[in-house]
Amino acid sequence: MPQPCPARVGDPVDQIETPALVVDLDVYEHNLDRMAGILAGRDIRFRPHAKTHKSPEVALDQIKRGAVGVCCQKVSEAEIMVQGGVHDVLLSNQIVGRSKARRVAKLAKQARIAVCADNKENIAELDAAAKEADITLSVLVEVEVGGDRCGVPPGKPALELAQIIQSAPNLEFGGLQVYHGNAQHIRKHTERHAAIAEAARKTTKTVNLLSSAGFECRTLAGGGTGSLDIDLELGVLNELQAGSYIFMDADYGRNFDRNEAFIGIFKNSLFVLASVMSTPRNDLAIIDAGLKAVAFDSGNPVISSRTGVIYAGPSDEHGNLDVSDNNPLLLGETVWLIPGHCDPTVNLYDWYVGIRGDRVERVWPVAARGALS
Amino acid sequence: MPQPCPARVGDPVDQIETPALVVDLDVYEHNLDRMAGILAGRDIRFRPHAKTHKSPEVALDQIKRGAVGVCCQKVSEAEIMVQGGVHDVLLSNQIVGRSKARRVAKLAKQARIAVCADNKENIAELDAAAKEADITLSVLVEVEVGGDRCGVPPGKPALELAQIIQSAPNLEFGGLQVYHGNAQHIRKHTERHAAIAEAARKTTKTVNLLSSAGFECRTLAGGGTGSLDIDLELGVLNELQAGSYIFMDADYGRNFDRNEAFIGIFKNSLFVLASVMSTPRNDLAIIDAGLKAVAFDSGNPVISSRTGVIYAGPSDEHGNLDVSDNNPLLLGETVWLIPGHCDPTVNLYDWYVGIRGDRVERVWPVAARGALS
Repeated sequence: MPQPCPARVGDPVDQIETPALVVDLDVYEHNLDRMAGILAGRDIRFRPHAKTHKSPEVALDQIKRGAVGVCCQKVSEAEIMVQGGVHDVLLSNQIVGRSKARRVAKLAKQARIAVCADNKENIAELDAAAKEADITLSVLVEVEVGGDRCGVPPGKPALELAQIIQSAPNLEFGGLQVYHGNAQHIRKHTERHAAIAEAARKTTKTVNLLSSAGFECRTLAGGGTGSLDIDLELGVLNELQAGSYIFMDADYGRNFDRNEAFIGIFKNSLFVLASVMSTPRNDLAIIDAGLKAVAFDSGNPVISSRTGVIYAGPSDEHGNLDVSDNNPLLLGETVWLIPGHCDPTVNLYDWYVGIRGDRVERVWPVAARGALS
Repeated sequence: MPQPCPARVGDPVDQIETPALVVDLDVYEHNLDRMAGILAGRDIRFRPHAKTHKSPEVALDQIKRGAVGVCCQKVSEAEIMVQGGVHDVLLSNQIVGRSKARRVAKLAKQARIAVCADNKENIAELDAAAKEADITLSVLVEVEVGGDRCGVPPGKPALELAQIIQSAPNLEFGGLQVYHGNAQHIRKHTERHAAIAEAARKTTKTVNLLSSAGFECRTLAGGGTGSLDIDLELGVLNELQAGSYIFMDADYGRNFDRNEAFIGIFKNSLFVLASVMSTPRNDLAIIDAGLKAVAFDSGNPVISSRTGVIYAGPSDEHGNLDVSDNNPLLLGETVWLIPGHCDPTVNLYDWYVGIRGDRVERVWPVAARGALS
């Protein structure tokens, strides 16, 4: 059922079947190495988010450079990571329902697993599953620090959940999950800084309350690529979860501070390689990559291989390109797209095609593509 | 690499692992049967588009009820259809490049295959591939009848391409592809009718010109679910390509004439089944289906299982539901979503879970999920 790989190792780049998800390995390794360099010597753990790449092979590339493990959003993702050789996974999300709780507990017999919770019924489910599996499961309290999504409010509600976790016979309190997702893409650095600083204040307030009640937060986890410099400056978190830095995307490129802060040093390594399939007019070319080949939730992709060309809009299997420079695209010509948003774009593909220069050097599966449950 | 199936035949519906792509088989069969009923006795072929369902099993359900075969957009989709037992496929799209042209020609040795073209270089590629495979390949000219996408203008440019096809030693002219995609979702029936009638006029003009030059258009292919009644009324097309009718979606539901015309008789058979994973407030519930579980290009999904609840917005793995009726959702509660757009939603899943009443009756793969090339 997986689709055939669109290239073989050793192929010239111009023989890749399009559309394809292509990683420029030089840039990818630059991103991996720069993150390792930024974090080297700092008293902070790095647990990049695997929801970005959905690949144990990428996770192992990160772990080789100092990451302690990865985050996952879904238990199915975590299962694939563990099967692929990752020994330490934080489920940075609620895993709800008896069946999924059992899967978490089963996985915790094979690897170091922790999970987040924001609800006492869910904590009871996790406790029952841990009991059944005869393990002690580490559970973090997710605190809503500004994202208006999951999590309990800072302060007392978080303490109450920590107490419930601690009193559950088969669970242990692992700390706090305090991710502010919305803040990652606030365009202005000053405004992003203010949002992250407010989240940090809520976190500190909660940590102090927990501490005064005798709870140590071994893990204070959060952070993303857009807030990396700010999280490091504020120093509240002890475990960072940035994921997009390995690939970057057009939306991160629209953050205004790309050359001012850490974010400026990560570069686009991920592309959708497409081909021109129709050239109805000199100012219009149609490529073979539409809604099923690129994610559009964060805007249209950016054309990186040519100036004077804009991705005007998609349909299911087509992309309309506006050509404004009197230099029409040719039938069959390849076009390199920087996706608007890397995570859901990766999730559309079965294979990464890793290139170096003009050759395919490495191909590997998007093993957790479609891992939804 | 495919994900495990989220249910087994015989399971109660409330045991399906979420998120899951669920087909209500009673409604699905209603849609299949109603289309067969509408077309019965008419002098028109039906070749539904498989880009909607990406499943040879669905294709065979359609063929059993009178469809002559299916359309595909990609040669990879066509390969999977033929492998799954479909013997007649129209590639209703340009298939560009030597490698893909060869795949088309190879497939044409196993099944009845036709392909569309709008460019003489592409026609030369197809001819070379057909020669190499020692076959005669049927090629339709795609005419741009209003969609501002692929296709040559109506009239003389179409005739010129037909002549080029006919003079290519290994190709035969198969007719015209005249699909007006944009018109399918024009909200008002009168305006949609006008757009389709204009496309039909362009088609007729082209057919007459071709006829006066000695070219018979054996196939005049196009049409969609949104224009079904209009295409039948106008009687210009002899091969209909509607695909969405089997599933329908929230966007088709927003066409104003659902109870006036044929479109009103097809009902939503396709759902994303999701679960509540967090209940931060009485007026906010978070479900486990976000950008990777539903397509958002045609708007947010509609909640079909509850009134007073709106899908307010997605993030990668979460959906925020606004609850306005003081009847809060419960943790673990299942929520049924009607996707905004069926085609790209289906493409996110490995499995269909077919239910009848409160039981899972049939599970089958989305075999061409991710078939991009």
